[in-house]
Amino acid sequence: MFNQKLVEGLGKSSMIRAMFEEGERLKKLYGADKVFDFSIGNPDVEPPMEVQESLRKYIEEPGLHRYMSNAGFTDVRQKVADYLTRKSGVALKADHVIMVCGAAAGLNIALKALLNPGEEVMVISPFFVEYLTYIDNAGGVPVIVKTQKETFQVDVDAVEDAITYKTKAIILNSPNNPTGVIYSRKTLENLKSMIERKEEELGTDIFILSDEPYVSIAYDGIEVPNMLSIFKNCIIVNSFSKSLALPGERIGYIAASSRIMDVELFAAAMVSLNRTLGFVNAPALFQKVIADNLDVAVDTESYKIKRDTLYNHLLKVGFSCVKPDGAFYLFLKTPIEDDALFCSTAVKHNLLLVPGTGFGCPGYVRIAYCYDLSMIERSLPAFTKLAQEYGLC
Amino acid sequence: MFNQKLVEGLGKSSMIRAMFEEGERLKKLYGADKVFDFSIGNPDVEPPMEVQESLRKYIEEPGLHRYMSNAGFTDVRQKVADYLTRKSGVALKADHVIMVCGAAAGLNIALKALLNPGEEVMVISPFFVEYLTYIDNAGGVPVIVKTQKETFQVDVDAVEDAITYKTKAIILNSPNNPTGVIYSRKTLENLKSMIERKEEELGTDIFILSDEPYVSIAYDGIEVPNMLSIFKNCIIVNSFSKSLALPGERIGYIAASSRIMDVELFAAAMVSLNRTLGFVNAPALFQKVIADNLDVAVDTESYKIKRDTLYNHLLKVGFSCVKPDGAFYLFLKTPIEDDALFCSTAVKHNLLLVPGTGFGCPGYVRIAYCYDLSMIERSLPAFTKLAQEYGLC
Repeated sequence: MFNQKLVEGLGKSSMIRAMFEEGERLKKLYGADKVFDFSIGNPDVEPPMEVQESLRKYIEEPGLHRYMSNAGFTDVRQKVADYLTRKSGVALKADHVIMVCGAAAGLNIALKALLNPGEEVMVISPFFVEYLTYIDNAGGVPVIVKTQKETFQVDVDAVEDAITYKTKAIILNSPNNPTGVIYSRKTLENLKSMIERKEEELGTDIFILSDEPYVSIAYDGIEVPNMLSIFKNCIIVNSFSKSLALPGERIGYIAASSRIMDVELFAAAMVSLNRTLGFVNAPALFQKVIADNLDVAVDTESYKIKRDTLYNHLLKVGFSCVKPDGAFYLFLKTPIEDDALFCSTAVKHNLLLVPGTGFGCPGYVRIAYCYDLSMIERSLPAFTKLAQEYGLC
Repeated sequence: MFNQKLVEGLGKSSMIRAMFEEGERLKKLYGADKVFDFSIGNPDVEPPMEVQESLRKYIEEPGLHRYMSNAGFTDVRQKVADYLTRKSGVALKADHVIMVCGAAAGLNIALKALLNPGEEVMVISPFFVEYLTYIDNAGGVPVIVKTQKETFQVDVDAVEDAITYKTKAIILNSPNNPTGVIYSRKTLENLKSMIERKEEELGTDIFILSDEPYVSIAYDGIEVPNMLSIFKNCIIVNSFSKSLALPGERIGYIAASSRIMDVELFAAAMVSLNRTLGFVNAPALFQKVIADNLDVAVDTESYKIKRDTLYNHLLKVGFSCVKPDGAFYLFLKTPIEDDALFCSTAVKHNLLLVPGTGFGCPGYVRIAYCYDLSMIERSLPAFTKLAQEYGLC
């Protein structure tokens, strides 16, 4: 009776969201303090104080809640352009920036503006699994390329092997969800040189679609290389869900590099899509709020403490895991091959984890540690018991 | 280089938005008070006081800006369900309500959840032209049926003639954009009887998709018949863009009637689409705000004064126009056939109107009168001059 393909696919819906809903169920059953929910990247920190101050300021402003241009408020776009210019050294104008309803909206818009039917988009696994749906929404074909096994860094040779004359874009996500790994400057410079060589060879353009909601969350002073400064055909998609802890408000932007040929045409196509795909414009109030707070970020030091607490304990009880340099995820190797089964076992200890299969990478689980430190500390004995169950300690 | 179909279509982009952008240009050139911009339904009234009070209350609330279920906050959905139950007499539960980023998002989601490839969606002309894009986004085929010429009421016989075994939905929009006409109870009851007969005859289900952002804007005590109470397979899409003057904030809902067979499955499909199409969830803060203000609406009395001021003057100087009972649009018959040419002539008098062609109805122009009364009053001499130019007075 309804969209048949969709209805049939409902069972295979997001493993992340399924775990999130399971968590809500268990919390009602056992009490919120007895459930250790690491399922979703839903920061339980509050937005920085500056955000609340901006909110208080703007709710008094007349005319704020009206329609504006589909691209967003011009002053907001100018501020974002100035900020990115300062960060990257690439001169961007307001015209290169489109305010959008979060990064998910931004990716859908950018992909649809780029792709002709059947063109290929490369995703680097492990990856945020909704990328596949977004590519499908835009009529593209996903090509999955694995990262290097020990480091989760981009495997430049593997990417090169997968490039065809149909390759239109490569989605990069660093700091990475789910691994927390930051792609190194060396890796990205190699990728860039290889892409330029392939573009020359094939006579095509290959776009870097940089999904970077975690760009401000990095530890120990490690560099997060600026994508605009490295890649010529670079499109940034960002949101303030993580950097300002505002995931429920759906506020983000797309920035297309001024070095892209005919970038004005590309931007116009994206502005048009913002309307026709049903987004219309990014929420007005939060456009103004984020424009005041581009240099503000949540306290990464507190995330680092959470990472260290959890990471050190997991290693101590015998698990193995690449140490994440950014974002707020740990990608744990499962002691058995079947990561879904491992997650079911974890649920018995009230631990909610997400199978790596949901990120195109079986044999792992993702642990989102953007939660209250006391919950993380209370969960440690449950992780110990889980390790014991597999004879790790 | 980019999506070719899209880039080629850019010139044919929304006439409404084109006029809006032209208005911004002229205002910079001549000064805002010299330009009479009737192009876009962008209320220049402020949201009711209650909205600001709610905003002030909620920005203090901890945890408000986090992700919630993709369907929206449960308490908000429950309040909307209770409100609609009270209005319609049809018992709705929170599960039947999905909070969305405005009505444009809601229509895209509902259409995609309904349609299998090639199924038909009927639109009643004149109509909001983006419907065609939304139907295309969902893989459907639009079928346009004209209203009755003198009244802009639904022509039930014409709808019946256009129904095939592929007809999946009919989009209704009352009070109507662009005509301001409210579909009468008698018309809707006739439509319902005819649809039930056709469903029986064809063995199909035909859904009513009621796009009703103007439902609370009606004049002179005229009835806006409740669609849920009339149609069994009814899906309401609503937003607070007009009723609370919040178009920039993108907040609305979808409500699927509890009388739809397998409505839970349909709702689950829509919740999943909210995520996969990139909307994720409706903005958190404004979900809470609207839930407090479901019974609140902007001052329709002031809109009525605007309508009367403009309508009476237009008739006085010789134009003809169906008197609108709701929304905030006048749909004026143009004295020449070419409505685009008429609009160009109007621009010479600094009057920004939108050609009826942009609503599937050539020979008319839409005048959005949701603006400051003093601007409307200042514009009257320009309308007189326009009428004189065509020898109407």
